[in-house]
Amino acid sequence: MALIVQKYGGTSVGSPERIRNVARRVARYKALGHQVVVVVSAMSGETNRLIGLAREIMPEPDPRELDQMVSTGEQVTIALTSMALMDLGVKARSYTGSQVRILTDDAFTKARILSIDEERIRADLNAGYVVVVAGFQGVDEAGNITTLGRGGSDTTGVALAAALKADECQIYTDVDGVYTTDPRIVPEARRLSTITFEEMLELASQGSKVLQIRSVEFAGKYKVKLRVLSSFEEEGDGTLITFEESDNMEQPIISGIAFNRDEAKITVLGVPDRPGIAYQILGPVADANIDVDMIIQNVGADGTTDFTFTVHKNELNKTLSILKDKVQGHIGAREINGDDKIAKISVVGVGMRSHVGIASQMFRTLAEEGINIQMISTSEIKISVVVDEKYMELAVRVLHKAFELDQAAA
Amino acid sequence: MALIVQKYGGTSVGSPERIRNVARRVARYKALGHQVVVVVSAMSGETNRLIGLAREIMPEPDPRELDQMVSTGEQVTIALTSMALMDLGVKARSYTGSQVRILTDDAFTKARILSIDEERIRADLNAGYVVVVAGFQGVDEAGNITTLGRGGSDTTGVALAAALKADECQIYTDVDGVYTTDPRIVPEARRLSTITFEEMLELASQGSKVLQIRSVEFAGKYKVKLRVLSSFEEEGDGTLITFEESDNMEQPIISGIAFNRDEAKITVLGVPDRPGIAYQILGPVADANIDVDMIIQNVGADGTTDFTFTVHKNELNKTLSILKDKVQGHIGAREINGDDKIAKISVVGVGMRSHVGIASQMFRTLAEEGINIQMISTSEIKISVVVDEKYMELAVRVLHKAFELDQAAA
Repeated sequence: MALIVQKYGGTSVGSPERIRNVARRVARYKALGHQVVVVVSAMSGETNRLIGLAREIMPEPDPRELDQMVSTGEQVTIALTSMALMDLGVKARSYTGSQVRILTDDAFTKARILSIDEERIRADLNAGYVVVVAGFQGVDEAGNITTLGRGGSDTTGVALAAALKADECQIYTDVDGVYTTDPRIVPEARRLSTITFEEMLELASQGSKVLQIRSVEFAGKYKVKLRVLSSFEEEGDGTLITFEESDNMEQPIISGIAFNRDEAKITVLGVPDRPGIAYQILGPVADANIDVDMIIQNVGADGTTDFTFTVHKNELNKTLSILKDKVQGHIGAREINGDDKIAKISVVGVGMRSHVGIASQMFRTLAEEGINIQMISTSEIKISVVVDEKYMELAVRVLHKAFELDQAAA
Repeated sequence: MALIVQKYGGTSVGSPERIRNVARRVARYKALGHQVVVVVSAMSGETNRLIGLAREIMPEPDPRELDQMVSTGEQVTIALTSMALMDLGVKARSYTGSQVRILTDDAFTKARILSIDEERIRADLNAGYVVVVAGFQGVDEAGNITTLGRGGSDTTGVALAAALKADECQIYTDVDGVYTTDPRIVPEARRLSTITFEEMLELASQGSKVLQIRSVEFAGKYKVKLRVLSSFEEEGDGTLITFEESDNMEQPIISGIAFNRDEAKITVLGVPDRPGIAYQILGPVADANIDVDMIIQNVGADGTTDFTFTVHKNELNKTLSILKDKVQGHIGAREINGDDKIAKISVVGVGMRSHVGIASQMFRTLAEEGINIQMISTSEIKISVVVDEKYMELAVRVLHKAFELDQAAA
């Protein structure tokens, strides 16, 4: 007998029929003797409907009142899910974030969970109930309802699993796991049966948008066994996210290929090579709240250097004008260029720590296809390159094949 | 400066535009220096939508889960109303029944209010906020959300007014007050500027469905000054419901004419006139949970008596078959008749306590029009008669005129 937390997103509970499906799955786990806590989001579309209604009244809705209102979306789903379970003869009871006292700070619309009072849930579980908890919401010290921000239901699931020391936290979504890369680009992409937490973080932040990063970090912090599964398939074990490197000899070197075409590249050419230049360039960018991803600086031969970094495509023009207005003259840079026709491709795998030659294999594979590499950046478990956007699909496909990701692990 | 509780029903907050209207009215009261607590219902249609959704999942929804879900209707309205106030520059803060701790028993879907913790509201009022509270809902000792049943928002308004010792509880509805009779039948019907609590009870239960009886009883118990007003008109003082007979000499003798065409009459003829007969007839009816309204028994000359009573039209056939199966043979009644083509008309007024001749004037007026009276029943402040249904409108009109209800009070 295990204690399992199952989280279902808005699409999984998007209609009465789908809620009945969720109830049937929960009932199957219950019938196997497990204790089950279910976390649900609002029915798909409901949160946006409520926000729209609020904006009709107040163009910039007051955050406290917005949370008061938007939290009703999950409150409806928990009641419906409990009823669907009861209708199957399964004892069930629903709780809002406030009722199980998911205590948060008072940062309305983006609150952080501080603690969870799990006693009430545990008593219900021991009495044979399935406990259905509203995702995405909590309550502050003063009794105000708060929400955790978009994707916060994942965080609720993980936080509950941590508080209850659950055996597993299952995140049901519309994909059946984490893949070696996007199957829409590489049909041979394989579902990974396990992936490490760090790899997941790299893959999630690079475009494999399966889980909210924050919930994965949370799971890592509290060592919660996290599994991603499809709510639309009866079978399948999904992908388990682990927090220790497996000592399994068959651990693949590379787990997956991530990509991102949302970035733009900015190059500051002919910068005098002296201390403090990086700060002088990026300081004004950071002050404007623009997130910078890759940063590369190369020392040149003539006492000047070229400085390159990437930002989100939407911020390219803003960044360029900041640099031209506030930075170029000040530091004496020769030229500033922007390019939004780029793509970033990353090879990710904890296995590469103990294997040499991954980088060179990556570069050779791209060279054989005539793909020029514009930027390179590496971390312990990832090598990222920036290439011309038009080569993105090709690069992902040839790398996927070169690292034999289409082959089942031995 | 007064403390005013204003309650707005579902129609009054049925759209963003109407919510803005409510906010404008509240802002006007606030601008006059009053402290205002606003109680709102769910937007019209929302409660039924939620109940429909629940029934799709569970034909007989679990009461606890239904309350958990249905209570979201008001939760949305309080947030929208607060936002509409803020948008006008008025400080506002919303609370669910649970947040201001409207403590109830745990009779889900029909809970009774036990107490209200008014401290938080009072602190907000003193800090200059308009406080917006969800009607219709509360929380039980264990933290479960409860609802008060249909019309419960009126009760919330009155209960808050009682707890806060408010100067007045204003109930905004789609009529602008209590009338001497239904203006659709008598165009000359006048709005009453005041009416006593007892008259209101008689008029409300007789078909002038302006307020929930329970909330009026509640107001009477706690001596809350209750005023009925229209939310669709800018001007007008509505009708004030008082709890003491005014010593105003101009107090009219009769306040209004009530009528009801929902009842049916049942006559048990030729019953042996002996003790216990009334119980033998009505006991089995009460056991079947059928409400009986008027009851009349007349001793006959031949040692038998005729026994007549009224029930709701919908219960006529059920009542007849109970009487024929279980009662008629047992008590030896000669005949049992049912008639659903009747109407009850009542003349209501606390003034009649100190005036003789009201009954005879009523009977004479009806006789002059050739309207036969089938039953008569009296209380201290009401005389009711049952007549053939087809004379109902005529009877209401002539009585309205005979008691000079179309004349403004001197």
